[in-house]
Amino acid sequence: MALNKYDEIARAAIHLFNRKGYHATSVQDIADEVKLQKGSLYHYITSKEELLLQIVSRSINGFSHELEGIVNLPESATERLKKAIHHHFGIVAGDVEMTTVLLRDAFLLSQDQHKIIVVAMDRYLDHWVRILQEGMKSGEFREGDPRLAALSILGACNWVYRWYNPNGAKSAKEIADYFCELHLRGIVVGE
Amino acid sequence: MALNKYDEIARAAIHLFNRKGYHATSVQDIADEVKLQKGSLYHYITSKEELLLQIVSRSINGFSHELEGIVNLPESATERLKKAIHHHFGIVAGDVEMTTVLLRDAFLLSQDQHKIIVVAMDRYLDHWVRILQEGMKSGEFREGDPRLAALSILGACNWVYRWYNPNGAKSAKEIADYFCELHLRGIVVGE
Repeated sequence: MALNKYDEIARAAIHLFNRKGYHATSVQDIADEVKLQKGSLYHYITSKEELLLQIVSRSINGFSHELEGIVNLPESATERLKKAIHHHFGIVAGDVEMTTVLLRDAFLLSQDQHKIIVVAMDRYLDHWVRILQEGMKSGEFREGDPRLAALSILGACNWVYRWYNPNGAKSAKEIADYFCELHLRGIVVGE
Repeated sequence: MALNKYDEIARAAIHLFNRKGYHATSVQDIADEVKLQKGSLYHYITSKEELLLQIVSRSINGFSHELEGIVNLPESATERLKKAIHHHFGIVAGDVEMTTVLLRDAFLLSQDQHKIIVVAMDRYLDHWVRILQEGMKSGEFREGDPRLAALSILGACNWVYRWYNPNGAKSAKEIADYFCELHLRGIVVGE
């Protein structure tokens, strides 16, 4: 499927931010990458910063949207946590470049714009916390601090963008399975 | 104890990189912060990038140096892993600003300089992997992939710099204790 022009521009920017860094990437570079005159590019974007904000907003909302569905499934907390880990890995492994921009570059936004992303990231964390809370409340998970437990799992899963290699010996699915094993043993009663 | 001038400059830079960001911090800003003329500052540093390289090199070498001692202790892998987690938390919580520069800003270095830091970070990871390997080999830890298990624990511990709040309800020691519990249950046989 052909990307629409805006998506093509966003994809080019993601690629350039990964390769050259956000600061070293000029609007001209992005225009060159999508074969537009700089003036024409401005029909689609207002500024490089606005484009970064759009990219990271879409990215974190993509992470959250599906997780929200998982949290609300009529399944055990254990099952939902496994699905959450696989969901997160699926996005990271499926689009390391976009995840890198989200997790590495979002702080380069102005304070006000960064705040928007921090709030959206907190909302994503909240979904994880809810699974942990429900599992602890029902006795399925050991008692503990649901927020810290969520931060431990999510931290491990977030860090993946720094080391994941699509050509590595293990697939994203295999790594996610192993992470489920490690983290669920840490919290599930009787595991 | 008074810092020597170079340490004072490094500390000022760490503070400014945290507050304003690396790119938005000028050499003039650093000079102002330590009350030197820009010309005099250049007696101590060659460039902002060289200063960033020095800061992150020192930081990652600080992480590694003590961990190397822990890895070589004549203790069980479980004990050494607990000590490693506490060691890592101690540095992060003791100096969130420096850890932020290390884990957030190192990639802003030029490719060659960043490579130096990536190699040093890999060496730090290797120490963690060695504890995992030894525990798995002796049967103290469940069989698994020592590198992935190390990346899971280290990822969770690294992510701490993004959310740790020195004024939060739990101390760094309490959080580290809980992380030990979560991660050791995940790998230790019979836990």
